[in-house]
Amino acid sequence: MTYVVIGVVRNPVRKSRPDGWDGVKSDLILRDDLEPALDAIEGFSHVIVVFHIDRVPRDEQRLQIAVGNEDEPPQRGVLATRSQLRPNPIGTSVVRVLHRRKNVLRVQGLDALDGTPLLDIKPYLPAYDSVPEAQLPVWAVRHEDGA
Amino acid sequence: MTYVVIGVVRNPVRKSRPDGWDGVKSDLILRDDLEPALDAIEGFSHVIVVFHIDRVPRDEQRLQIAVGNEDEPPQRGVLATRSQLRPNPIGTSVVRVLHRRKNVLRVQGLDALDGTPLLDIKPYLPAYDSVPEAQLPVWAVRHEDGA
Repeated sequence: MTYVVIGVVRNPVRKSRPDGWDGVKSDLILRDDLEPALDAIEGFSHVIVVFHIDRVPRDEQRLQIAVGNEDEPPQRGVLATRSQLRPNPIGTSVVRVLHRRKNVLRVQGLDALDGTPLLDIKPYLPAYDSVPEAQLPVWAVRHEDGA
Repeated sequence: MTYVVIGVVRNPVRKSRPDGWDGVKSDLILRDDLEPALDAIEGFSHVIVVFHIDRVPRDEQRLQIAVGNEDEPPQRGVLATRSQLRPNPIGTSVVRVLHRRKNVLRVQGLDALDGTPLLDIKPYLPAYDSVPEAQLPVWAVRHEDGA
């Protein structure tokens, strides 16, 4: 499957980090010719950003990783995690829309490094995308979430 | 950007339809070599499925489409909609996990046709993915949602 790059992420974050993304503001700079494709997106409070995780070497990808809240977590399938070391380095993040000007959409909370290539932007529709009652296995509950 | 096909969707739906997907059960059949990557995913009640929308001809893609709940909706940016006619035909859907057996994950509610190529499966994490209070513009509120 081959896709085009529709734009690029601009923000101050140059190095990977596990968290601390909530306050990060990013400009999603679309290709000039795609500006009309953004029209009316500013009416949504949130969007789903689909991006290419471009800073993970392909040879670091693996099928299982040791992850979980145990002291010594066992290997688990990479598709059961949000690790970047997945078969296809595609990221999806729900972010808040701050404003749009021409071909630039400013958002908050995107966990992507400066320079990340963009693949898609979709409006967030709670009726389809929000499942507040979704359940996690015990090993995946983060301690800082109050568990 | 080039990605590999990690598996395929199997379900009884052969023709596109705008809705009626809630009850559709699908088998996500992963490539045999990727079976270990699914380990532990059955502990999540919901996953995000990322797939290639393979039944939309590239020459039908456009920057704007007439969509909205008005009698005669104006043209709006395709990225402000969930239309399949977007620059990159990548779909993302939140679905319920029914069960997993070896390399097959059975899910409910996936809006993808039989034979659709799979790109990624991610666990749904409400802390990141659920925003029940997200706002829509008036034109995007569906009448059947009670608006």
